[in-house]
Amino acid sequence: MEDIDSMIIEMEKAALVRWGNGDPAGFLEITAEDVVYFDPYTERRIDGLSALKDYYQGLRGKIHFDRYELLNPLVQRCGDMAVLTFNYVSYAGANADRWNCTEIYRKPVDGNWRIIQTHWSYTEVFKNKMED
Amino acid sequence: MEDIDSMIIEMEKAALVRWGNGDPAGFLEITAEDVVYFDPYTERRIDGLSALKDYYQGLRGKIHFDRYELLNPLVQRCGDMAVLTFNYVSYAGANADRWNCTEIYRKPVDGNWRIIQTHWSYTEVFKNKMED
Repeated sequence: MEDIDSMIIEMEKAALVRWGNGDPAGFLEITAEDVVYFDPYTERRIDGLSALKDYYQGLRGKIHFDRYELLNPLVQRCGDMAVLTFNYVSYAGANADRWNCTEIYRKPVDGNWRIIQTHWSYTEVFKNKMED
Repeated sequence: MEDIDSMIIEMEKAALVRWGNGDPAGFLEITAEDVVYFDPYTERRIDGLSALKDYYQGLRGKIHFDRYELLNPLVQRCGDMAVLTFNYVSYAGANADRWNCTEIYRKPVDGNWRIIQTHWSYTEVFKNKMED
């Protein structure tokens, strides 16, 4: 695996650890102004960092997991864009949530890699989540 | 909107029309060998065109919708990569399914734009789909 791929996976992991401690800022600090965002709870795509900050503000302190597993992360890189996809399991007590995730990172000429698209969804949602 | 952005949206629409008629080949014909794929029913990410063909083969003729709405499609382009995101509603009789979608297209030096990542999930799944 190339160095840039590993670096992007490490950025994601560091943000996820903070996320699991109720702190969305780990993601916000590595997210670009023109980000677009999907998860299973939003009525529509969220457009832009400002709107995403507002949304995450409502989640601050409300998310907690004890540990997580990142399954089979893959980076597809093409020039200054990198597509990171993985399955993911978060554990909180006896509960395990299984996720699909696509993160798209972009590197500006004069800046650092930043997320321009996030898409979270549940893996096999009707099998794993219906009974929750 | 730039010409390339419009072209990518039109490619997606043409594949969706065939999809709604039970024909997955519209997507397969514009998908790259190294595609990765998520939807709400797969146990894990699907890797590669061959595996995706196998999966779609099981869906052939089983999907039908009468019409669809593509909501607010947006293309984020960076060099030879283009990220298309949209919300989407498919209608079949009295049923409406609401979706989040991320498609990533890549243009090889000597080829045409092809999908390298597809992520489908339900919009507000617990609100819209729990009662189905």
